[in-house]
Amino acid sequence: MHTPIPDYLHEVLENTRDDGEVATYIPELARANPDLLASALCMSDGKIYAAGDIHERFTIQSISKPFVYALALQERGFETVLDKIGVEPSGESFNSASLDPRTQRPENPMVNIGAIATHALVRPEASRDERFEAVRAGLSAFAGRELDVDEAVYASEMGTAFRNMSLAYLVRSVDGFTQDPADIVEGYTRQCSILVDVRDLAVMAMTLANAGINPITQERVVDEHVAQQVLSVMTTCGMYDAAGDWMTQVGIPAKSGVAGGIIGALPGQVGAAVFSPRLDPVGNSVRGVQAFERFSGDMGMHLLKSPPLSRDVIRHANRRVSGQGEFHVIELQGPLRFSSAERVMRELEQIPNDRKTIALDLARVSSVDDVSRRMLMEGLRRLILEGHAVYLVDPRSSIPNRDLGDGTFPADAASLETLGLALTEGS
Amino acid sequence: MHTPIPDYLHEVLENTRDDGEVATYIPELARANPDLLASALCMSDGKIYAAGDIHERFTIQSISKPFVYALALQERGFETVLDKIGVEPSGESFNSASLDPRTQRPENPMVNIGAIATHALVRPEASRDERFEAVRAGLSAFAGRELDVDEAVYASEMGTAFRNMSLAYLVRSVDGFTQDPADIVEGYTRQCSILVDVRDLAVMAMTLANAGINPITQERVVDEHVAQQVLSVMTTCGMYDAAGDWMTQVGIPAKSGVAGGIIGALPGQVGAAVFSPRLDPVGNSVRGVQAFERFSGDMGMHLLKSPPLSRDVIRHANRRVSGQGEFHVIELQGPLRFSSAERVMRELEQIPNDRKTIALDLARVSSVDDVSRRMLMEGLRRLILEGHAVYLVDPRSSIPNRDLGDGTFPADAASLETLGLALTEGS
Amino acid sequence: MHTPIPDYLHEVLENTRDDGEVATYIPELARANPDLLASALCMSDGKIYAAGDIHERFTIQSISKPFVYALALQERGFETVLDKIGVEPSGESFNSASLDPRTQRPENPMVNIGAIATHALVRPEASRDERFEAVRAGLSAFAGRELDVDEAVYASEMGTAFRNMSLAYLVRSVDGFTQDPADIVEGYTRQCSILVDVRDLAVMAMTLANAGINPITQERVVDEHVAQQVLSVMTTCGMYDAAGDWMTQVGIPAKSGVAGGIIGALPGQVGAAVFSPRLDPVGNSVRGVQAFERFSGDMGMHLLKSPPLSRDVIRHANRRVSGQGEFHVIELQGPLRFSSAERVMRELEQIPNDRKTIALDLARVSSVDDVSRRMLMEGLRRLILEGHAVYLVDPRSSIPNRDLGDGTFPADAASLETLGLALTEGS
Amino acid sequence: MHTPIPDYLHEVLENTRDDGEVATYIPELARANPDLLASALCMSDGKIYAAGDIHERFTIQSISKPFVYALALQERGFETVLDKIGVEPSGESFNSASLDPRTQRPENPMVNIGAIATHALVRPEASRDERFEAVRAGLSAFAGRELDVDEAVYASEMGTAFRNMSLAYLVRSVDGFTQDPADIVEGYTRQCSILVDVRDLAVMAMTLANAGINPITQERVVDEHVAQQVLSVMTTCGMYDAAGDWMTQVGIPAKSGVAGGIIGALPGQVGAAVFSPRLDPVGNSVRGVQAFERFSGDMGMHLLKSPPLSRDVIRHANRRVSGQGEFHVIELQGPLRFSSAERVMRELEQIPNDRKTIALDLARVSSVDDVSRRMLMEGLRRLILEGHAVYLVDPRSSIPNRDLGDGTFPADAASLETLGLALTEGS
Repeated sequence: MHTPIPDYLHEVLENTRDDGEVATYIPELARANPDLLASALCMSDGKIYAAGDIHERFTIQSISKPFVYALALQERGFETVLDKIGVEPSGESFNSASLDPRTQRPENPMVNIGAIATHALVRPEASRDERFEAVRAGLSAFAGRELDVDEAVYASEMGTAFRNMSLAYLVRSVDGFTQDPADIVEGYTRQCSILVDVRDLAVMAMTLANAGINPITQERVVDEHVAQQVLSVMTTCGMYDAAGDWMTQVGIPAKSGVAGGIIGALPGQVGAAVFSPRLDPVGNSVRGVQAFERFSGDMGMHLLKSPPLSRDVIRHANRRVSGQGEFHVIELQGPLRFSSAERVMRELEQIPNDRKTIALDLARVSSVDDVSRRMLMEGLRRLILEGHAVYLVDPRSSIPNRDLGDGTFPADAASLETLGLALTEGS
Repeated sequence: MHTPIPDYLHEVLENTRDDGEVATYIPELARANPDLLASALCMSDGKIYAAGDIHERFTIQSISKPFVYALALQERGFETVLDKIGVEPSGESFNSASLDPRTQRPENPMVNIGAIATHALVRPEASRDERFEAVRAGLSAFAGRELDVDEAVYASEMGTAFRNMSLAYLVRSVDGFTQDPADIVEGYTRQCSILVDVRDLAVMAMTLANAGINPITQERVVDEHVAQQVLSVMTTCGMYDAAGDWMTQVGIPAKSGVAGGIIGALPGQVGAAVFSPRLDPVGNSVRGVQAFERFSGDMGMHLLKSPPLSRDVIRHANRRVSGQGEFHVIELQGPLRFSSAERVMRELEQIPNDRKTIALDLARVSSVDDVSRRMLMEGLRRLILEGHAVYLVDPRSSIPNRDLGDGTFPADAASLETLGLALTEGS
Repeated sequence: MHTPIPDYLHEVLENTRDDGEVATYIPELARANPDLLASALCMSDGKIYAAGDIHERFTIQSISKPFVYALALQERGFETVLDKIGVEPSGESFNSASLDPRTQRPENPMVNIGAIATHALVRPEASRDERFEAVRAGLSAFAGRELDVDEAVYASEMGTAFRNMSLAYLVRSVDGFTQDPADIVEGYTRQCSILVDVRDLAVMAMTLANAGINPITQERVVDEHVAQQVLSVMTTCGMYDAAGDWMTQVGIPAKSGVAGGIIGALPGQVGAAVFSPRLDPVGNSVRGVQAFERFSGDMGMHLLKSPPLSRDVIRHANRRVSGQGEFHVIELQGPLRFSSAERVMRELEQIPNDRKTIALDLARVSSVDDVSRRMLMEGLRRLILEGHAVYLVDPRSSIPNRDLGDGTFPADAASLETLGLALTEGS
Repeated sequence: MHTPIPDYLHEVLENTRDDGEVATYIPELARANPDLLASALCMSDGKIYAAGDIHERFTIQSISKPFVYALALQERGFETVLDKIGVEPSGESFNSASLDPRTQRPENPMVNIGAIATHALVRPEASRDERFEAVRAGLSAFAGRELDVDEAVYASEMGTAFRNMSLAYLVRSVDGFTQDPADIVEGYTRQCSILVDVRDLAVMAMTLANAGINPITQERVVDEHVAQQVLSVMTTCGMYDAAGDWMTQVGIPAKSGVAGGIIGALPGQVGAAVFSPRLDPVGNSVRGVQAFERFSGDMGMHLLKSPPLSRDVIRHANRRVSGQGEFHVIELQGPLRFSSAERVMRELEQIPNDRKTIALDLARVSSVDDVSRRMLMEGLRRLILEGHAVYLVDPRSSIPNRDLGDGTFPADAASLETLGLALTEGS
């Protein structure tokens, strides 16, 4: 059998229609073949699906912005970065010469003025070339391979970088950074000229969606809360001045670049990338937008889509007797998060007081998040305080640290079978 | 044992600090006791936790906006509603007299001018009172009980409704509606004067988070795609002019009201509400915002939070022999969605061609969304086309309709035990 | 001989080109004959020149704004009016729903929202009809005849007055007035529907240019400082969003109306009016603007045009002897204002100390403004203090009150001839 | 006697109150003595009155803007300059990074971004230093003496010229100029660092008010229509974001600078300057603004002030008989401009047809502008065509060229005495 996903990707690409124009304000970009088209998906274990002109490399342009923002947050910390750059959608075009009128900061790191300020935050004391090398190395870590610069595009962009120079001096004038603005613009323009293909972009997006860990190299590139912050800002500011349209119709944190790339990242699930050079009037790839509308609809990837009905987290809850005595057995299943852990709390609440020994079976639990782990431990602690004996059956160590917070621990059991409490399958 | 959730709610409320002012522009609201404080959480099965002044009723005010937007979308359809009201954050204050300069429509349904236009979309041919009754009945369906109007607040607001009158005439001047603007403002003001308590609001929020089905009455109030649209618009436009701050710091679709209420809705998980009359300068409840920051952080409810690592969806995949022959057995576990179904596709791809008979076991699968169901069926169809015999072990009917799309069906099996293929637990 | 001015007016009208569109948003105005064309000039003594369709009456529309502003200033005083309505150009379109963000007042009385607020300032305690009657009577005083309302246009405008209703409620919401907004809009719309012809408008403009005195009836309609304030506001705010274009290219305080009228007023010189219904995109009469560009260029009426070189204010200054003794005689000529009076002061300064008796001859002075009168009197006072005898020769009473401020008076002389000091003409 | 004007100037200065702050964003300016205070008036014949710290020199700063705009208009022509820089008030602060959204040009030459673009228009092909020298020489011609640069202020400003660099690059990015932005900012900053005192500024202002001719050197620095354009732009854009306040309260075309200078120019009358370093929040000298309010009120210098009533331009008009026959004699007096010439036309119209010989006496006319000269000649031409004999009595050559436009000429007469038609004085 062959997995149907490549067929799907091909079908999506074939069904996009194209009527935009390639970017022309950077002469070198105007020479791009407008009919190029490629897409890739990267899964959380690093598996990549790709279709179309997948070996075509192009400059990353604005898609570099969220990743350098991530590097800045990681290196300098939230306080320093948020002190210099806001997180609000600007309602202005991507190259607007405007600061937040109240704070005199760039409004967000996804518009050019904010991205230039972000570049300056990386290795602030270093030379221009050292700073760029830190950025290039950081983006390479996101991609999982060493990335290079397209020197022809870099030279072409620098030849018309007047507006970016204006933005850099504007930020400099409000002490958004203290380096030489020309150095920052040169570094930022090199950053935009880094060459990638759709697979690189899909891996980079998946690294954000994977809490900061590159799914291929398994390197932790940035911390989880950094990845969350970047995805949050992409959600409201990533697709320029149509945040509401994108949120209602696609609902995936995303970022587009003027060379024709778009990335999207759905936490825990997938990193996606499309490349097609023709742009719509606001500067997003025409076919890229269409492909993401398909991804959102077909793959159920909208952030606000209701998840399907889950089975009850309580698989069984009943009295069982074995050679080891009488137990109140509770078998859990599926993912544990706040809402399912809350259901478990209610189940614990209803255990009759005379059921002195309790076995809680996590063998079928597929995942445990931090809040549900804490809730579970608190529930067990309360049961023990009330005089119950508690066995935790956790053969796959869903809960690594079993300290209940007050130095007590539940009893351990390898499995319900060990305790002689297993039911036959399906019962 | 008592579930720790009520303790948590109490602790959150106690730890909010209060330094805002109650709304004064509506004289009746200025009389509110500023020290009132309450919160409620509603789970997807209708369980409600509540703490504080939970019997206190207050006017719903702007929190009515997303629900009436939902009613309008449900009754009139997306095309009609989107033709009249945009979905972009406005960057203006909630009562701004501004239309989208390009489209001459209200920018979104969460600012007053858009909410007034939304009210007019409900039952457009009906009388003022019939329209209001439709709105009141719709909001009651969201709440699961019959809601009433606070006539004193209504009268007080109408006495100073000059700005809303201005907004209504502005919309009327661009043919945003064709009814009498005074009728629309009266209806809208009655809508804002509907009385709720925090439990009502939590149920209403959970109805949106529950794909449109009231978790208590089980009534489908609006369609799933309507609920998704409303939550999307709340995400970018719900908290007035700080969309980016709210998204980065809280990350829960939300809406606040000038009487001091805030609701939040996390799809599939929880509807939350807080009530505290003191407001910050942009008009959000001071303690309400603090409580939601706690909810987001403590309960892991941020939309962009990476989910915890799941166990591999493939629990076992190996050759087993029983009295019924030789099987290639694949046991799945946990939730199936695009990313885990994709993993399953890869597993199916690797089945050796000589393994003629395949058993796919869904007994431990906790949920199956639409895309993963389609992917699974497509994978099975391809296996059968290649000459494999396929058994689907689905004791809990995770996949109700097993038609593979071309009229073929996989074979059915009650359980691996039935086929004699079960392993002992833990192996 | 026939004066060439009518020929000039005809020539100007014939040489305007027309390519705009009549206003259509008021249905009744859309029925106007677009080819109508008329112009009139009114001089300070009431003489009127007119050409074209001079008997055609049309609704005054926005041209009423400066005159009702004048009535409000006259009736309520500067402080009250300036407290409610600003004087800054708005940079917004004439019907924008915007208030000054800092002061929450309408930005000026020439945009609709400011004109509506202005209407409400007239006779604030009166009924709607009494207020309108005060406005109609005031405009009639400006025109010098009783003006009537075009009831068909009034009814047509009221049928689509939604935006003006919106503006009125917006002003009401910030307490810009306290009357019923519907009453104010009805009164304001009647005000806009008052019928005038180009001769009426020229007289009205000349009344402003004539320091508030109607040049025909000689009635003082408003005070001089009111007229100056209105002309000042017309200068920066009269021609909508092109204040700079109008100031550089025309340089005449002006106001246009949507029915096709434009007025201009040059202090002390002329009131001008043109009527032609086709409008340019910002709402000004196409041929009206062209005619005013001609007026400005041909008639030297630009406010910032340098006046021609004047003859020296000192016609003669020398020693003369008559039977009455030895005199230092200074004959002045032309207009006296600050700059020429300053020159006189210098002349007085140079009188040799031994010239004990001085004769100052004002017989050839054409005008004396307030500052030059004060300077002259101060100069004479100082001469007397120094011991000079001073004769003032002022046969036409250019200086009615000769009190030098300290109770002293210069000597009086009917003429230089009386003193035997006249030179022969031309010497 | 001593002229009272110096006393007046002293009194004005003494009665200004001071509560602002000196500019601090340029470190060198922050060292200014905040208590310095000086003022000067320059008359059209070059006479200067000055009071206060009149020998104190300070940097011209933004007051250079109108003069360099004049130089650019003179050198490059209106079309080129207007194609690059608009004339509309911007409503933004003086250093705003904004272009006209419609035209992508700086909105006017009085805000920094427009002044930088203006500097680049002077000698566009020259080197940075040659361009600056042309500017310095041009400003020196306005001042009537060679002006120098304060190198310390220049160096200080260049050290913090980040915002101006941003503005220059922004203009460069829209091809507002093609030179190196750093060169332009350096030249512009040197321009702002030129040293002047209040007398220099008064002379410079009077040169604009004097139709472009320096009142002291009598050099024509710019053409009359250039001076008119500059004064027009100063009227709407000179005092930053309070065009309406300044026009209503002062009504004098003006420009202020951050070092504390303000100039005002009233066409044909006076150039005024005040210097006092403390600034109000929008950047205008606190005492400078107060002094100009006094000048406007006390000296009757408001542009929209109605001129005083003039004597009738017709001094006498009657039949007189001398040895040379029967004449219809018309004696004119005072200034001739459109409005008075129009009155003359009416007088000519009423000459009885049987009065064959006409004498028009201009001996008492104080000035004749271009339009009135043309009207007069046309009137005489028509009289001659109708068969009248016409004598022009113009002893002071008010009308140098007497060609009536069709090759005919009126007869000449030295004076009414020559013709035996003089009346006795006062009759």
